[in-house]
Amino acid sequence: MPEIKILSQGDLERLVPLDHDAIACVEDAFRALATQPVVMPAILRLDIADANGEVDVKTAYVPGIDSFAIKISPGFFNNPQIGLPSVNGLMVLLSAKTGLVEAMLLDNGYLTDVRTAAAGAVAAKHLSSEDASAAAIIGAGMQAQMQAEALCLVRPITEIALWARDQDKAQKRAATIEAATGTTVVVAESISEAIKGRDIIVTTTPSSKPLIEADLLEPGQHLTAMGSDAEHKNEIDPNLFRLDDLVYVADRLSQTRILGELHHALEKSIVPKDATYPELGEIIAGALPGRTSAHQITFADLTGTGVQDTAIATLARQRAYRVGAGTSFKS
Amino acid sequence: MPEIKILSQGDLERLVPLDHDAIACVEDAFRALATQPVVMPAILRLDIADANGEVDVKTAYVPGIDSFAIKISPGFFNNPQIGLPSVNGLMVLLSAKTGLVEAMLLDNGYLTDVRTAAAGAVAAKHLSSEDASAAAIIGAGMQAQMQAEALCLVRPITEIALWARDQDKAQKRAATIEAATGTTVVVAESISEAIKGRDIIVTTTPSSKPLIEADLLEPGQHLTAMGSDAEHKNEIDPNLFRLDDLVYVADRLSQTRILGELHHALEKSIVPKDATYPELGEIIAGALPGRTSAHQITFADLTGTGVQDTAIATLARQRAYRVGAGTSFKS
Repeated sequence: MPEIKILSQGDLERLVPLDHDAIACVEDAFRALATQPVVMPAILRLDIADANGEVDVKTAYVPGIDSFAIKISPGFFNNPQIGLPSVNGLMVLLSAKTGLVEAMLLDNGYLTDVRTAAAGAVAAKHLSSEDASAAAIIGAGMQAQMQAEALCLVRPITEIALWARDQDKAQKRAATIEAATGTTVVVAESISEAIKGRDIIVTTTPSSKPLIEADLLEPGQHLTAMGSDAEHKNEIDPNLFRLDDLVYVADRLSQTRILGELHHALEKSIVPKDATYPELGEIIAGALPGRTSAHQITFADLTGTGVQDTAIATLARQRAYRVGAGTSFKS
Repeated sequence: MPEIKILSQGDLERLVPLDHDAIACVEDAFRALATQPVVMPAILRLDIADANGEVDVKTAYVPGIDSFAIKISPGFFNNPQIGLPSVNGLMVLLSAKTGLVEAMLLDNGYLTDVRTAAAGAVAAKHLSSEDASAAAIIGAGMQAQMQAEALCLVRPITEIALWARDQDKAQKRAATIEAATGTTVVVAESISEAIKGRDIIVTTTPSSKPLIEADLLEPGQHLTAMGSDAEHKNEIDPNLFRLDDLVYVADRLSQTRILGELHHALEKSIVPKDATYPELGEIIAGALPGRTSAHQITFADLTGTGVQDTAIATLARQRAYRVGAGTSFKS
């Protein structure tokens, strides 16, 4: 059997920083999702209620990419009580020609952070105003940091407002974002203060109740909700779907219907059951329009897709081989 | 993060031979499936038609077992043309308390072979005549070998008849079974010759057309079909379901309805859509009867379950820790 490359989180942080290449690789993956016969099964989900835990398994085969990733993402929400992170996990990369295991990416969720932030950048690149310079980030976790950094790679951001329930954490996160991006970061006292007058708003929380009321949004703004990846999560008031000038874009419609913000609008019958919307990849590929006027509000609903995992894991493997990183193992 | 134990196929062959412990561990897993609130999601399946490949991902959480396995099983059927095995794969073992990765079992399918053979032994132990001494094995692959060995661990087998399409392979497999079990192994020229007068029959092929006609079965025989784990596979004539004296037992009814031999009987309307049958675990637990008379024909339909994987992977990890086997990795 061929050798298997084992890469640690440290290896992967060095090999795959959040940069223009990572964004381009995720952009290509979304384009492929819209234009190629991608095979992306429904997410496998295992719930372990005894331990307040859940595991998602995602995968996708993208024609033209020689490998495919199977990603295992556990979330065990009692872990912080014993000093362990809630979310971790790994990706297994297999050859799309032979099914043989090529690499084990023991990333503890790092590559998911990168590909999720990259998707936020791709959404902003294709939907927000080109001269967007002011952003609002809701949440103070790792994705708050990375979404802010990702936006700065695709738009001329000079000022970021940050809001989080915990003002101490918000202050700390504001400092780390400022240090990483060189932008001015202000901590807002309320969500309405954070988003007022900003060009781009990104929500990054695990909230299960809407944080952003529909009437807070202003013409021309772009909103990315990336926190919802489970039925019960909900960051945005579903009444937003009532706006005439809304351009709603799903990462994958079959997922946002059951896991994303759209799910709640469907459940409340705010949109009809058979309503259809463009996917991000269709806009990237030019098959469907995204923003067509400056006053529209664009709304990207990102639940996370297997094609992103396959794309970022393949990038990691290519770079690991190029520089000889990681440990080789034979079995 | 805690250390991850990485075990090679060689490690696992030494740690988990097909023995009474392996059979007991799979028997316990089936009992748990019937008596505990086991969580076993539907199998995730990815098809890569471009490469004549498929991948199954199985998992199950069994209350009382501290770990759970996620098994990745690729089958790429053009591989033999380039000198690679069709089937390989690995299991990832995670803590059921924290979701952290505990072990990577790079078994290339070995543990699946063991837990599949062990399920055959468990079925024979609970359904076949106690003094069964003559067995027939259909097929000449690795499972032919392992099912024969497994039967010998639970029944006083003295003679085995083997049939396979390829008589050369059948001769070679007969010799290796004889060497491993000490029984007399004869190669039969036809399926009817193989199964005539035998107490236990096990089919181990990937056939997509029935190999065993219903009228070949004799009163008192026990039949295990373990080859069918996909919609198109079919080893047994579905007319067998018409017999009054048939005791049909599924490993998991929700799976055999769509992947197993039952699937074909349902498709041909030989059994009604809402027909229900005992599961192996219910018989082990004593919740439902199995064989109740000597002249019944018992028929175990084994499609492979995630609880078997969780059980055998946990056994492997326990033994690896006990003897300090494998390589430790930190990420």
